[in-house]
Amino acid sequence: MEFSFSYYIGLAGIMVFTISGATAALEHKEHHHDVFSVFFTGFITAIGGGTLRDITLGNYPVSWVKDENILWAIFVGFLLVILLPKVVTKLRNELFLFDTLGIGIYTVLGTRIALDHGVNAFASALLGMISAIFGGVIRDTLMNEVPFIFRKEIYATACLAGSVLYLVLNEWECQANLNLIVSASLVVCIRLVAVRFNLGLPKLKIF
Amino acid sequence: MEFSFSYYIGLAGIMVFTISGATAALEHKEHHHDVFSVFFTGFITAIGGGTLRDITLGNYPVSWVKDENILWAIFVGFLLVILLPKVVTKLRNELFLFDTLGIGIYTVLGTRIALDHGVNAFASALLGMISAIFGGVIRDTLMNEVPFIFRKEIYATACLAGSVLYLVLNEWECQANLNLIVSASLVVCIRLVAVRFNLGLPKLKIF
Amino acid sequence: MEFSFSYYIGLAGIMVFTISGATAALEHKEHHHDVFSVFFTGFITAIGGGTLRDITLGNYPVSWVKDENILWAIFVGFLLVILLPKVVTKLRNELFLFDTLGIGIYTVLGTRIALDHGVNAFASALLGMISAIFGGVIRDTLMNEVPFIFRKEIYATACLAGSVLYLVLNEWECQANLNLIVSASLVVCIRLVAVRFNLGLPKLKIF
Repeated sequence: MEFSFSYYIGLAGIMVFTISGATAALEHKEHHHDVFSVFFTGFITAIGGGTLRDITLGNYPVSWVKDENILWAIFVGFLLVILLPKVVTKLRNELFLFDTLGIGIYTVLGTRIALDHGVNAFASALLGMISAIFGGVIRDTLMNEVPFIFRKEIYATACLAGSVLYLVLNEWECQANLNLIVSASLVVCIRLVAVRFNLGLPKLKIF
Repeated sequence: MEFSFSYYIGLAGIMVFTISGATAALEHKEHHHDVFSVFFTGFITAIGGGTLRDITLGNYPVSWVKDENILWAIFVGFLLVILLPKVVTKLRNELFLFDTLGIGIYTVLGTRIALDHGVNAFASALLGMISAIFGGVIRDTLMNEVPFIFRKEIYATACLAGSVLYLVLNEWECQANLNLIVSASLVVCIRLVAVRFNLGLPKLKIF
Repeated sequence: MEFSFSYYIGLAGIMVFTISGATAALEHKEHHHDVFSVFFTGFITAIGGGTLRDITLGNYPVSWVKDENILWAIFVGFLLVILLPKVVTKLRNELFLFDTLGIGIYTVLGTRIALDHGVNAFASALLGMISAIFGGVIRDTLMNEVPFIFRKEIYATACLAGSVLYLVLNEWECQANLNLIVSASLVVCIRLVAVRFNLGLPKLKIF
């Protein structure tokens, strides 16, 4: 039950991450990207974070190498972007909500996987966050831009908060599914509030 | 026989990838690169794709860590670039042919290695392509440029076509060496035709 | 004894690398980085090189995933930067010395770990260098800058010289601790001399 629940949410998250990556290529200012670029950027965005988590943990086989469904979810996301680009960009707000749900789920699943590998709490929190944000980091780096996590309103920090909550509730022996929902919800809430009120962390400047 | 055939072609491919990476550093517009940069860029270009494939598959030890000959092939390529830079840049057309042969071989060898790890067909095709293109992607990212696969005529797509053909012929139980030659040839042909006639994939633009 | 010696030096090196990464984010020209960016950049700089070495070797669990102390050393470095930014930037010269000591230690420890995995000498030398420099390379790439190893006075080459000396002395059955100190000292000396006299490797230019 937990598996199927988080599994299908995970597939939906993969598809949404693909769409966000593919539209980033579409909207790139300096270059007109071709069909392949749109696919590849979507693919990297969708699997980058989870792949980095898995190879850091030695968690083989890596998810998309093991489970072809992940690649089909990416393919569907890619098809939506190239066949219905205007619809996709109009649905920007809905996609934003989905993306936010996606990072919430990714964060807690990543934290869970790290814990299951016997990893210490600090590293588990970081690996949860890395699962959620690193696909986008790699996407932006390949697009030759400063990664969005260095520019946007609170994003990665929301993930960190969610994975810390997951660890605390896990320590208190909270039921697994409940913990997944509560902790992912924290990520979503922080992120929504941050975007709604344009909140960022304090900036540091010394020069 | 298959081993020795693909092995020596593979070493030649490594050397050519090194030369292409090292000359990219040499020709960089904004920075005059020193001897180390030329070596390092060549090294990264040559081993980047295969290393990423191996760590994604958990295929240890990684090829250049296991087989010192790969590093000597890189070293020879590096020496050619720093000792005979003008000759190397004059041989641009010949190198282009070699590079094209290299990506053809890399693609099918990468696909083969993925299949041997029991990986599904979709992921094997992607890992074959990643073997061939990712050294160049890392090279361009380190040079602070948009990766060539997002700019050039059909390149990664030619690799994908070759790995798909390899998978189909493999499914039909085509003899292994023959399949290697035929599928790599497809990559080479598509690439040569694309460059000759300046063909690209359809570009997408919505804004 | 060897463990504890190199272990505590290693933790100090981690902290200094964190500080160097975090201050790079602080001083970034175009973007004012927030607290999270400063932490994340410090974290990546500190663990990037060792993590890449470990996943290339299949050396699991990766150091910071296994040993929480590494993450606490990073956290202390991060706190120093955000609480005492002016002190940290005034101590620039002292930090430079520490950073230099850090790359010396990282280089020989990385070379040692590779040898312990039965890796050939050429690859061990490269993996020692990668341990020392790649955190900074990833940091600069994420900051959307050409990596410092392509710009600075002799840096990576000093690491290579140190790992080659380590391999030679190891071949001659030099006592392990003595070798560690002598080889790391070579890295430090070459680097200090290079910075003092503004020495670079010969540059290549053909156009």
